[in-house]
Amino acid sequence: MNQKVYAGIDLGGTKILAVILDESGTILNKSEQSTDAQEGSEAVIQRMIQLIKDCLEPSYQLTGIGVATAGTLNAQEGIVALASNLGWNQVPLGKRLEQAFGVPVNLENDANAAAYGEWAAGAGRGTKNCVYVTVSTGIGAGIVSAGRLIRGRDSSAGELGHITIDWNGPRCLCGNVGCLELYASGTAIARRAQQLATQFPEEALMLTGRAGTNPITSRHVAEAASNGDELSAKILREAGQALGAGLVSIIHVMNPEVLIVGGGAASIGAPLLDPMHQVIAERGISSMAAGVKVVSPSLGKEAGAIGAALLVFDPIS
Amino acid sequence: MNQKVYAGIDLGGTKILAVILDESGTILNKSEQSTDAQEGSEAVIQRMIQLIKDCLEPSYQLTGIGVATAGTLNAQEGIVALASNLGWNQVPLGKRLEQAFGVPVNLENDANAAAYGEWAAGAGRGTKNCVYVTVSTGIGAGIVSAGRLIRGRDSSAGELGHITIDWNGPRCLCGNVGCLELYASGTAIARRAQQLATQFPEEALMLTGRAGTNPITSRHVAEAASNGDELSAKILREAGQALGAGLVSIIHVMNPEVLIVGGGAASIGAPLLDPMHQVIAERGISSMAAGVKVVSPSLGKEAGAIGAALLVFDPIS
Repeated sequence: MNQKVYAGIDLGGTKILAVILDESGTILNKSEQSTDAQEGSEAVIQRMIQLIKDCLEPSYQLTGIGVATAGTLNAQEGIVALASNLGWNQVPLGKRLEQAFGVPVNLENDANAAAYGEWAAGAGRGTKNCVYVTVSTGIGAGIVSAGRLIRGRDSSAGELGHITIDWNGPRCLCGNVGCLELYASGTAIARRAQQLATQFPEEALMLTGRAGTNPITSRHVAEAASNGDELSAKILREAGQALGAGLVSIIHVMNPEVLIVGGGAASIGAPLLDPMHQVIAERGISSMAAGVKVVSPSLGKEAGAIGAALLVFDPIS
Repeated sequence: MNQKVYAGIDLGGTKILAVILDESGTILNKSEQSTDAQEGSEAVIQRMIQLIKDCLEPSYQLTGIGVATAGTLNAQEGIVALASNLGWNQVPLGKRLEQAFGVPVNLENDANAAAYGEWAAGAGRGTKNCVYVTVSTGIGAGIVSAGRLIRGRDSSAGELGHITIDWNGPRCLCGNVGCLELYASGTAIARRAQQLATQFPEEALMLTGRAGTNPITSRHVAEAASNGDELSAKILREAGQALGAGLVSIIHVMNPEVLIVGGGAASIGAPLLDPMHQVIAERGISSMAAGVKVVSPSLGKEAGAIGAALLVFDPIS
């Protein structure tokens, strides 16, 4: 019992990932297990407790636990208010873990936890102002300013996918109009490809050939583009430009030092990201945009668990 | 020497305004004087020192000084790097005031200082997350999150006038495209009125009659609208809708409790602000937008000086 350690857990719909960090943020141990949420919240909590116990060595002194999870949280009370991926409703997760280990427990939205992890221990390390953007089926962001996670009134800050980039544009499911997510997410790329394939079947042959009888996905678009398909390249270019336009807005609002762009769709790489970089360079206010490093995340799938553990030091206040 | 007090100064291009606050933020004394910047920085600094001295009573123990000023600051070094309204270049204002009074001095951008003042002692009092938007010739914002002023990398955060609301829109002087400021500022209202007056001289007779031989201003548009001019009402309605679209974006990014909308153009009132409120209600994600109080500022012209004084407790780190 002489080395202080922190546990971080990423509680996902399919897997639970636990890490143990020392005070410097180095991973000492990690483990993962299926969530099996269908067995109910009590079984999942027991699995989380066991997973942490399995990761602890006799010499470790557990000092705090952070949990990253999707859904709506009442973080101050340590309650998972509503997590549809787990089927949870008003689960007092924080209290249960506190009782089991006798240490403070901090709950955080999974996107924010991943952003905090990347800021503190990954691609944003050493900076004070960092925005981590996830481009996936949707678009989200976690924001760190002056070394503190921006949570907002009810931990909903960072809904970057739902900033307006065309105030006369189409309606989004969220109720807003012309949301960034409608133009630059993986879903948007697939939808645009499907539209163009219907409109111009001749030009879309490479793309539809790749999808076969399945619906076109952003992955098909990326593959066709990397095989020289011009229509696919154009779809990705336009999505990347839209993404750049959205990132210019967040640069102007937050004045960050580093912008980390991750998520499944971001892994498409240059065909999407080059136009994004170009728009940031062309359109950003030069004194603000020129100094921003736009980089990829570096922590991989542990980002959320690492961030959750480190957030024990910056709990919701 | 028994009552701790703080001095706040708003250093403007035409006037210097000083306030003395007690620890609870109450104004004990205030005074103002012409800046007379043409006499050079040394003369202005001497005037600032004298103005503070004039406001101090024998029983006051001055504990800190905050200065709000326009221009580019190197706040950590206490240097006004470039203030074109004063003709200042690399003026070590912080050090000079520190030497004169022997207390810590904190410099802050004037928009941020006013936002902080309104948050701490004005319309945002009692909240933790607040955005203060100034709609004037341009549009700017100061953001407080979890009770701390958001400064960003080089105190440039909050450039809300230059978020994109139409990514295929016209070019802004800042280099970006489709900036909020191009649609919703006082300048934008005047420009749109001028365009429509040229295009539809018949419909614009009330408006052009009011302006006479002078260029149309946003004030003329407001006056004509309040006298029942439909064209002017339409111009203000569209500007208000654009403003609402921009504010939806900042609500989604910052998740504030209160949004304070001030500045000269905001004083146009209902013809501009009603459409703004409507767009926020219609388009904001309901869980985030429904709880946001959208209000007017309450401190008047002292907001910047008050905020500067209170920021002595939250200096740049």
